Amino acid sequence: MLLHLSTWPEVETYLNTSKGIIIPIGSTEQHGPTGLIGTDAICAEAIAKGVGAATHALVGPTINVGMALHHTAFPGSMSLRPSTLILVIRDSLTALAKAGFRRFFFLNGHGGNIATLKAAFAETYDALDPLTEGDPLRCTVGNWFMSRSVYTLAKELYGDQEGSHATPSEVALTQYVYPEAIKTAPLSPTVNSGHPIYGAAEFRRNYPDGRMGSNPALATPEHGQRLYEAAVKDLSKSYLEFLGRD
Amino acid sequence: MLLHLSTWPEVETYLNTSKGIIIPIGSTEQHGPTGLIGTDAICAEAIAKGVGAATHALVGPTINVGMALHHTAFPGSMSLRPSTLILVIRDSLTALAKAGFRRFFFLNGHGGNIATLKAAFAETYDALDPLTEGDPLRCTVGNWFMSRSVYTLAKELYGDQEGSHATPSEVALTQYVYPEAIKTAPLSPTVNSGHPIYGAAEFRRNYPDGRMGSNPALATPEHGQRLYEAAVKDLSKSYLEFLGRD
Amino acid sequence: MLLHLSTWPEVETYLNTSKGIIIPIGSTEQHGPTGLIGTDAICAEAIAKGVGAATHALVGPTINVGMALHHTAFPGSMSLRPSTLILVIRDSLTALAKAGFRRFFFLNGHGGNIATLKAAFAETYDALDPLTEGDPLRCTVGNWFMSRSVYTLAKELYGDQEGSHATPSEVALTQYVYPEAIKTAPLSPTVNSGHPIYGAAEFRRNYPDGRMGSNPALATPEHGQRLYEAAVKDLSKSYLEFLGRD
Amino acid sequence: MLLHLSTWPEVETYLNTSKGIIIPIGSTEQHGPTGLIGTDAICAEAIAKGVGAATHALVGPTINVGMALHHTAFPGSMSLRPSTLILVIRDSLTALAKAGFRRFFFLNGHGGNIATLKAAFAETYDALDPLTEGDPLRCTVGNWFMSRSVYTLAKELYGDQEGSHATPSEVALTQYVYPEAIKTAPLSPTVNSGHPIYGAAEFRRNYPDGRMGSNPALATPEHGQRLYEAAVKDLSKSYLEFLGRD
Amino acid sequence: MLLHLSTWPEVETYLNTSKGIIIPIGSTEQHGPTGLIGTDAICAEAIAKGVGAATHALVGPTINVGMALHHTAFPGSMSLRPSTLILVIRDSLTALAKAGFRRFFFLNGHGGNIATLKAAFAETYDALDPLTEGDPLRCTVGNWFMSRSVYTLAKELYGDQEGSHATPSEVALTQYVYPEAIKTAPLSPTVNSGHPIYGAAEFRRNYPDGRMGSNPALATPEHGQRLYEAAVKDLSKSYLEFLGRD
Amino acid sequence: MLLHLSTWPEVETYLNTSKGIIIPIGSTEQHGPTGLIGTDAICAEAIAKGVGAATHALVGPTINVGMALHHTAFPGSMSLRPSTLILVIRDSLTALAKAGFRRFFFLNGHGGNIATLKAAFAETYDALDPLTEGDPLRCTVGNWFMSRSVYTLAKELYGDQEGSHATPSEVALTQYVYPEAIKTAPLSPTVNSGHPIYGAAEFRRNYPDGRMGSNPALATPEHGQRLYEAAVKDLSKSYLEFLGRD
Repeated sequence: MLLHLSTWPEVETYLNTSKGIIIPIGSTEQHGPTGLIGTDAICAEAIAKGVGAATHALVGPTINVGMALHHTAFPGSMSLRPSTLILVIRDSLTALAKAGFRRFFFLNGHGGNIATLKAAFAETYDALDPLTEGDPLRCTVGNWFMSRSVYTLAKELYGDQEGSHATPSEVALTQYVYPEAIKTAPLSPTVNSGHPIYGAAEFRRNYPDGRMGSNPALATPEHGQRLYEAAVKDLSKSYLEFLGRD
Repeated sequence: MLLHLSTWPEVETYLNTSKGIIIPIGSTEQHGPTGLIGTDAICAEAIAKGVGAATHALVGPTINVGMALHHTAFPGSMSLRPSTLILVIRDSLTALAKAGFRRFFFLNGHGGNIATLKAAFAETYDALDPLTEGDPLRCTVGNWFMSRSVYTLAKELYGDQEGSHATPSEVALTQYVYPEAIKTAPLSPTVNSGHPIYGAAEFRRNYPDGRMGSNPALATPEHGQRLYEAAVKDLSKSYLEFLGRD
Repeated sequence: MLLHLSTWPEVETYLNTSKGIIIPIGSTEQHGPTGLIGTDAICAEAIAKGVGAATHALVGPTINVGMALHHTAFPGSMSLRPSTLILVIRDSLTALAKAGFRRFFFLNGHGGNIATLKAAFAETYDALDPLTEGDPLRCTVGNWFMSRSVYTLAKELYGDQEGSHATPSEVALTQYVYPEAIKTAPLSPTVNSGHPIYGAAEFRRNYPDGRMGSNPALATPEHGQRLYEAAVKDLSKSYLEFLGRD
Repeated sequence: MLLHLSTWPEVETYLNTSKGIIIPIGSTEQHGPTGLIGTDAICAEAIAKGVGAATHALVGPTINVGMALHHTAFPGSMSLRPSTLILVIRDSLTALAKAGFRRFFFLNGHGGNIATLKAAFAETYDALDPLTEGDPLRCTVGNWFMSRSVYTLAKELYGDQEGSHATPSEVALTQYVYPEAIKTAPLSPTVNSGHPIYGAAEFRRNYPDGRMGSNPALATPEHGQRLYEAAVKDLSKSYLEFLGRD
Repeated sequence: MLLHLSTWPEVETYLNTSKGIIIPIGSTEQHGPTGLIGTDAICAEAIAKGVGAATHALVGPTINVGMALHHTAFPGSMSLRPSTLILVIRDSLTALAKAGFRRFFFLNGHGGNIATLKAAFAETYDALDPLTEGDPLRCTVGNWFMSRSVYTLAKELYGDQEGSHATPSEVALTQYVYPEAIKTAPLSPTVNSGHPIYGAAEFRRNYPDGRMGSNPALATPEHGQRLYEAAVKDLSKSYLEFLGRD
Repeated sequence: MLLHLSTWPEVETYLNTSKGIIIPIGSTEQHGPTGLIGTDAICAEAIAKGVGAATHALVGPTINVGMALHHTAFPGSMSLRPSTLILVIRDSLTALAKAGFRRFFFLNGHGGNIATLKAAFAETYDALDPLTEGDPLRCTVGNWFMSRSVYTLAKELYGDQEGSHATPSEVALTQYVYPEAIKTAPLSPTVNSGHPIYGAAEFRRNYPDGRMGSNPALATPEHGQRLYEAAVKDLSKSYLEFLGRD
C-alpha cells in the first residue's frame, strides 16, 4: 500500500491495524561511468514497495536526495547537508506521529545516509517527545545492501569485484527495475579502493571515475532480480520484527 | 532525460549544451475522500517528464514532501516547515550550481509551495553568490495548475466545480497517470469554500472532508490526458522562454 | 491606538474588547534616484496608523527592514534573509499570543515581503500551536499598493508610468507624509521593465537606476494624500472583515 | 541625515566622506503603569536623530523589537529571542558592509539588549570577514541611559527614585518627545528592587506593576528635554571618537 | 562532589537536598607568549572544585571551549560562535532541568563569555519554560577574576601591570595548579592596551603578542595560591547567596 | 603535548612539523549504579593523553558533553542534541583549520557519539572548504573501546559479562585513572540486554539501572591499567596511520 496512491480515509483505516510505515531513502549521486545517478533511490524505492506488498505495510514517499556531500565533485550529484537532512527527517515524521504512526522503518539505499539518519532519530525522539509521551516513536534503518542474503549473494556473484560504491549488485538491481536504462562505457580494469572518505575534492582525486573497488560490468538484470528478491525477503523479516518488538 | 536514469558522464555532456534543469516538486497531503495523497507529486513528476521529453531538458528527482502544514490534521499528510524547505532548496541547488547548472525550473504541483519556493530562491541567490559570481543562478516556479491552457480547460470541463483543492482536474491527471488507483467514495453534495487558510486545525474544521469547493467525482482519465497535454505544452513553452531570457 | 504610545494596563484593557493588532512591515531599500529608501516602511506605517484610527485597532511597531535581498546592490539597502524574517515574525507574535492576541494583520508596504510573510505565517501557526490550542492564531497580509481603490487611482493618475518599483504612487504617498523630504533628480526618459527578479547583481544590471518601469516624477503630495485616503479606506474594511471572520 | 529619508545616490555620496552609520535599537516592552511600551525605541530613535544632526552622520532605521523576554508576562510586550536578534544584526549589516559601511554605532535604549548585541557583533565580524578582509567592520553600543551626563543628571533629579526600569528619566524623555502621550496612574508608594532578573514569570512576580525601584511620577517633559540634550551631547562625542579611532 | 566522579544514584540523592549545580566554563585561547592556552578553563575548573568542596555543591563538567572569536588569529585558539554557545548552554541544561536541577551557577574564567552567557540564559528560560513551569530555572555567572577579593589582591600584587588579558593573576593561578607547566619567554617591556576589541585580525594587529596591557612575568605560583583562595572564598559566598535567594 | 598547557608560540612551532591534533570526546551520562557519570570523558581524555605522549601529538581540550539523549531519563546525564554537536565540531575546527591544522583525530569514549561525529565531519568538510581549498581537512574517529586489543582483552577478562554499556572494561579504566572514586553498590544478578535504543523514556524502561548486559563488579584498577595500555598502543598506531595517509 503506497501512501501516495492512498486517500486519507484509507490511511485512517490503516492506522486501526498498524502504526508502522516504511520510508524509502536514497540519494542522488554519481555511481561511476555506468551506474545511474538515481541508483540508491531506485533500489530503496523498489525494495520498499516489495516489502510493503509482502507485509501489507504502508510505504511513504521516497526521499530522493540524501547525504552525499562527498560525491558532489561529480556533475549531477546532489546532497543535503547532514543538519538539513536531520530537519527533513524530523519534519517528515511530525505530522505522521500526530496522526498516530509510531514505527518508522527507513529503507535505505545509501551508506552515506546511515550516520545522519541515526543522528536524526535521536533528534526526533527528543523533539517529538512532548507530542507522543507515553507512547513514544521508534525509528530504525534497514540497509538493503547490508542484509545477509544480499551480502551473501553479492559475494557469490562478484567476489572481490563487488567493491563498495557503484557496485555490480546495486547496478544489477537498477537494471532489473529499469532495463531500458542499462548503460555501458569503457571501464578501466584497475580501480582504486581502500581510501577513507573525506571531502568531495579528495574523493574525486582518489576515485577518479567514481567507482570504489567495483566492477559494475558484471551486473545483469537477472542478478538484479535475484538481489531484489533476497532484499525483499530479508527486509520484510526485519520490518515485521521491528513492528513486533516490545 | 531523467537525472536519476543518467550517469555522471552523461550529465557532464549535457552541461555542454544546457545549463538548465527541471525539478519537480509536489506535496504529500490529503486530497479529499477520493484524491490521492501523492496527487501533487504525481502531477508534477509526470508533467516534468513530459516537458523534459519535449524540450530535451534534464529532469531532476522529485521533491515529494512540500509545505503542507495546513493539511496535517488529516492522517497521511506530511510536511516540511517553510524554514526546512528553504534549506532543502538551497542545499539541493548547491552541488548542481558547482557543477555548472544555472537555470532551475521548479515544476510545481502544490499551491502551498509557492510562497516558500520564492523565499527559498532569494535565500539561495544570496547564499550561493560567492560560488557563482559573474554568472549567477536563476530560479523560477512553473505551476502546472495555473497555466493558461490548463486553467481554460478546467473551467470548460468543470466550471465552478473545479474548486481550489482536491480539484477534479488534478484528480483527473492522477487517474490518467495511475488508472489502477482510481478511488471512489460518497461525496457530500455540498462542499465548503471561501475560507482563508490558517493553521491545520482550522483547516480541517472548515473543510471537514478535505475538499475546497471541488467536485472530484467529475474527473475522468480522459480529462486527465487532455489536462496533461495542455500542461506539457504550456510549461514546455515556459521552460524554453526561461532558458532563453537574457 | 499605538502600542508604542500605550502602557501595559491599557493593552490589558484593549484585550477585553479585541484580539486584533495591526503590524506595519516595510523595507529599507533603494527606490530609484528620487524615491526614499524608507518608502515602504513610511507608507506602511502611515497607513497602519490611519487604519488604526479608523477602526480603533491597536497598531504595533513597524518592522523597518524586510526581505529586499534583490535590492542590495544599491547602497543604503538593507535586508533580512527570508529565514531570518520568518524567525522575526514568529518571535514577534509569541509574546503577543501569550497575552491573548489572536488576529495579526500585517500592513505591508513591500511586494518582496509577501512570500516570506506567508511562509512565516505557516511556520508560526505550527510553532505556536501548543500555546494556543483550541483558540488558534490567524495572520493575514494587507498590501496597501494592491488594494482596489489604490490600484484604480494609480492607474487613473499614472497609467503605464506607474511601473512596479519606485512607483509614482508610493513616492507620492511619502511626499504627503514627509513633504520636507521631496527629492528631485534627472530621470532618464526610458526605463527598463519586464525583467524577472533574480539576485541583487542581476537586478542592478537590469534596472540600473533602480526604477522598474516607473516615472516617479509624476508624483505629487496631493496625489499622495488621495492615495493614502484610498488605502486607509480599503484596508480598514479589510481589517474589519478579517476580525469578523468566523 | 536619515537613511529612510534619503535616496540611494545620496547614500553613495555620503560614503565618499564617511563609513559610519548610527542604528537606533529599542525594545517593545512594558514600562510600568505609566511608561510607554515603546519607551526604549522612542528614546533611542530621538537621541539617534539628535546625534545624527550634530555629527552629520547617517541614521538607519530603528530596530523596534529587542531582547525583552523577561518582560513578556506583561501584555503588549514583544521580544526577539537572543539567537534571532543575532541573526537580525548580522543580516542588517551585511548589505551595508557590501556597500562600504564599516563603522556601526548602535544607539541603544534598552539594557536587556546589551549582552545580545555584543554576542551579535562577534558573530557578525566572523560571518562577514570574507566580505571585508583587509578592511574589517567595527561595531559598538552606545547606551544613552548609561552616559555620564545623563547618569549625573538623573541622580541629581531623582536620586534613589531613579530605579532601574520604568525610570523617571526615560519616562521624562518620552514625555518630551511625545507630550501628547503623557500617562498617569496611581503608583504604589513602595516598589520592589534588587531582585535579579531571570525568566518572565519570575520577573512579574518580583515586580508586579513592572517598575524596578523607580518613581516615574517624578518625570516631567522639561526634565526630558534636559536629559535628551545631555544624551545627544555625550553620544555625539562617543560617535566621533568611535569614527576617529585607528 | 564532581558530577563526573559520581553515579546517577548519588545524583538522585543529592537532588533531595539541593537543586544547585556549578558549571565551570573557560576558553581555549592564546594568553600571550607565556600564558597557557587553557588558562581560562584551568582557572574556572580549579576554582569550581574549590567552591564545590567548600559548599558541598555538585560541580559539572567544564565547558572547555567558549566564545573567543577575537583570539582566533593566534594559533591554538578555538572558539564557538555565540549562536552555537547559546545552543550548548540550552542543551546542557535541558536534561539537568528534567532531572530537577533549578539553580545553575556558571563559574566563568573568560570575560568574552559573559555576554553570550547572558544571552543564553534568556534563551534557555524561554525554551525550557514548558518543562519547568511553576518552578522555573535560575542561572547566574560568577566571574572569578571580577570578584572583590581577587580584584583587590591583583591590584595589590601587580598594580597597573595586571592589564586585562594574559594577566599575571590568571597566569599565577595556572602556575599554582600546574607548576610543571610554567613557561618563560622574553616579553617586550612595552605592551599595548586600551584598544577596543573587534574582530580577530584587528585584535592581533593591536595586540601582536596577545597580551593586553599585562606583565605576566610578575606571576608566581605563590600568588596563584593566594588568588585561588580569594576566589574560592568569594565565589562560595556568591554561590550560597544564589541558592538562598527567594 | 596538551593544547591547554601550551602557549600559542609553542603551537606555532608544533605546526612546523605536524598538522595533526587529537581531540578527546566523551559524554556525561549515567553508567549504571557504580559507573561514573564522566566515564566516557575520563577514558577518552586519559587515553588521548597517552596517545599524545606516545606519538608527540598535540592533544586538544576534551569535549565533555556528547550525544547522550537516550540516557537523559537518569539524573545527572547531560546531552547535546545531534544538530548542536555538529555545530560544536564545526566551530571547534574552524580556528584550528585557519591556523593550519589539517588532521583531526577524535579520540572517542562513547558509542552514541559516532553517528553524529560522522555527520559533523561531512558538514565540516563542506563548510570549511572555501577556507582550505587545495589542502583540505581530514577527520576521523578512534573509538578506544572498539580497538582490537581492547576488545580482545575485554572478552578475555569478562566474556559475556562485558555487555555494551556500563561495561566492566570502561569502569575498570576509570578505576585506574581515579582509584579514589571507585564505587560499589548492589547489582542485580540479572541484567537486561538486546533492546534496541530509541528515546530516553524507553531506554530507562528497558534498562532500569542503566546497565546494558554488563557486570561492572568485575572491574579492577589493574584491569583498567591493562586496558589503558592496550588502548594507547592501538590508537597510537591508528593516529600515526591517519597522519601518514596520502
